[in-house]
Amino acid sequence: MDSAELLDLLGNANRRRILRLLSRKPCYVTEISEYLGVSPKAVIDHLRKLEAANLVESRVDEQRRKYFYISRGFRLEVSVSPYDFGTKSAYPASAGLDLTTCRHLSIDMDPGDASDLGELTSDLEQLKRLRDELSLAQRWVQGRLTDVMEDIAERIEGGDARLTVEILLVLADRTADLPEVSRRVDAPPPVVEDVLAVLSREGLVEQTDAGWTLSD
Amino acid sequence: MDSAELLDLLGNANRRRILRLLSRKPCYVTEISEYLGVSPKAVIDHLRKLEAANLVESRVDEQRRKYFYISRGFRLEVSVSPYDFGTKSAYPASAGLDLTTCRHLSIDMDPGDASDLGELTSDLEQLKRLRDELSLAQRWVQGRLTDVMEDIAERIEGGDARLTVEILLVLADRTADLPEVSRRVDAPPPVVEDVLAVLSREGLVEQTDAGWTLSD
Repeated sequence: MDSAELLDLLGNANRRRILRLLSRKPCYVTEISEYLGVSPKAVIDHLRKLEAANLVESRVDEQRRKYFYISRGFRLEVSVSPYDFGTKSAYPASAGLDLTTCRHLSIDMDPGDASDLGELTSDLEQLKRLRDELSLAQRWVQGRLTDVMEDIAERIEGGDARLTVEILLVLADRTADLPEVSRRVDAPPPVVEDVLAVLSREGLVEQTDAGWTLSD
Repeated sequence: MDSAELLDLLGNANRRRILRLLSRKPCYVTEISEYLGVSPKAVIDHLRKLEAANLVESRVDEQRRKYFYISRGFRLEVSVSPYDFGTKSAYPASAGLDLTTCRHLSIDMDPGDASDLGELTSDLEQLKRLRDELSLAQRWVQGRLTDVMEDIAERIEGGDARLTVEILLVLADRTADLPEVSRRVDAPPPVVEDVLAVLSREGLVEQTDAGWTLSD
């Protein structure tokens, strides 16, 4: 996975919108084209580029219609400073990744204290190591988030599993009232209300004065 | 700082090359133009966009020539999964940032164990919180890296402070022989050798069988 290639792809607003849409549900070309207000030809062109970079894959359903979905996800980090231009891209790490060295990441250094060049250089070394560990930990977290969302989607009987996961994600972020949840998942309030009612019956969410929240 | 705007800017290979060049040293338009093999007019156009986004600033030197440099740096993260499309951009965090909650980040969860929806939802919540903490910690690390590099540059007497910092950064990453260091900092071996000799006299680096390395 090449960072420059990823940045070229993500530098186009319509390709970003396609990825955002596919991260919510697999789609046919016509759906994407209608959603974006862009010709099917242009959509196909974008999808071809995203497929070539292995970001998107396609399958043919029972009606022999081709639909597109995000294959496995990725992470991209860019950090720019007056001393450094760094890009890093990677797939989410698998659950099997050895995180022994990251299990208890700790930021216990105080770089303001260094008094000579030797100490500054060793601070530099420590900070670079910490940066790499944090990146690795984030890849691991992203992989686990996807696993957990898949598990949740599998266990939700009937209803819209994906919408349910999205609503849980919004509430995992913070307590929100119906209009806010509805806006953030981009679904009509009555639809969201139905899902919340189901989740509430299962004891997963509850309504408080401040809005809907995850149950403890 | 808007992620979409950043991605639009970074989606251009020449703008990335300009940022990479400026992260190594402040430059005049003619220098950038010669380095990239691109017309001054095109360079000015890119610089104008980078300035408008507050990524780059300019100053006028004693000879009244305008030079450009990276103002304060930034971080951008993109994470895409079959369930989520997320972008996050931020300035490096200042040293004063309260990191109490992140000081002992620990990854002590085992998401594979969750057996029901309630547990999965609480895993989801924990993972999202961890993700936010890791991002915050990375912003802090990036800010400290810049501080330390500035401190080092200030303490290096004579010589090319910036090149010295770059060489230290390369060695902080891993032990490397002269040709490798020279290639990674993009400077001629004799120039790099002089800097290494100075650093070696100050006891900051030493030559081993495997190449140059930071002293303990």
